[in-house]
Amino acid sequence: MIRLKRILVTIDGSTQSMKAADYAIDIAQKYDSELIALHVLYSNKGFAFYTETATGLVTPSSINDLKEEAKEEAEKWFDEIRKKCANTNLQVKTEAIIAPISIVEAIISYSENENIDLIVIGSRGRSAFKKLILGSSASGIMTYAHCPVMIVK
Amino acid sequence: MIRLKRILVTIDGSTQSMKAADYAIDIAQKYDSELIALHVLYSNKGFAFYTETATGLVTPSSINDLKEEAKEEAEKWFDEIRKKCANTNLQVKTEAIIAPISIVEAIISYSENENIDLIVIGSRGRSAFKKLILGSSASGIMTYAHCPVMIVK
Repeated sequence: MIRLKRILVTIDGSTQSMKAADYAIDIAQKYDSELIALHVLYSNKGFAFYTETATGLVTPSSINDLKEEAKEEAEKWFDEIRKKCANTNLQVKTEAIIAPISIVEAIISYSENENIDLIVIGSRGRSAFKKLILGSSASGIMTYAHCPVMIVK
Repeated sequence: MIRLKRILVTIDGSTQSMKAADYAIDIAQKYDSELIALHVLYSNKGFAFYTETATGLVTPSSINDLKEEAKEEAEKWFDEIRKKCANTNLQVKTEAIIAPISIVEAIISYSENENIDLIVIGSRGRSAFKKLILGSSASGIMTYAHCPVMIVK
């Protein structure tokens, strides 16, 4: 008997990430899991916050601006996910975070810290070249995740 | 509502592939899916059979020998899977095939021909170097599969 208490789906507005959400929602219902929809905005501006090499151009308030930007960008996708879950008993949490180093690193860290049992991702993100069959984020997450990963095509 | 009518798990005797089987069995129960456990034995001897360049060293009977070898090798793993399914209502099919070109190609073709809805694989196979975090088979399958792929760590 496996346990999937917490399922994470990463959302970037791409068709594949929304299809990944459909799978995550369905599996979360079967396993009575908590569903977390995560959007990650990459910005190296956030890095200064961590390295303490801030030159004055990056301040805590600009970090907050970045977070707001990520949240705003994600809100319409989160709304769509909430709609998909409207007729379920699912507990859904949405979160937008800044990735100061890389999107893969941010998702991996988040998953570990939040004790995620399954990560569901689309095979290609928004920014991937159409030519690439598997996006670099998907590939990195599969490689470094501590838990099972489902790639949705 | 997603449909997972047929779930494929690939088995090579590695710890990871047996853990993948646990996930596949559990999900198959939730979705009332048919479960297929597949073992692929790579042998370029099988290739002559396809290319008709047989030199006389490879005959249909030696192909059959290869198939028997794959089946024999897999039987103990299949037994283990049947045991895990003993107290379920799962319909389990086991199959051992020869990969004349590559293991990835064989699994991809099998999945397409058999209308598989989800492939569950271990992150590393038996033959993978311990250093490799993600085996080359897992990586190839995720890239080329027509359906969702779940990687179990």
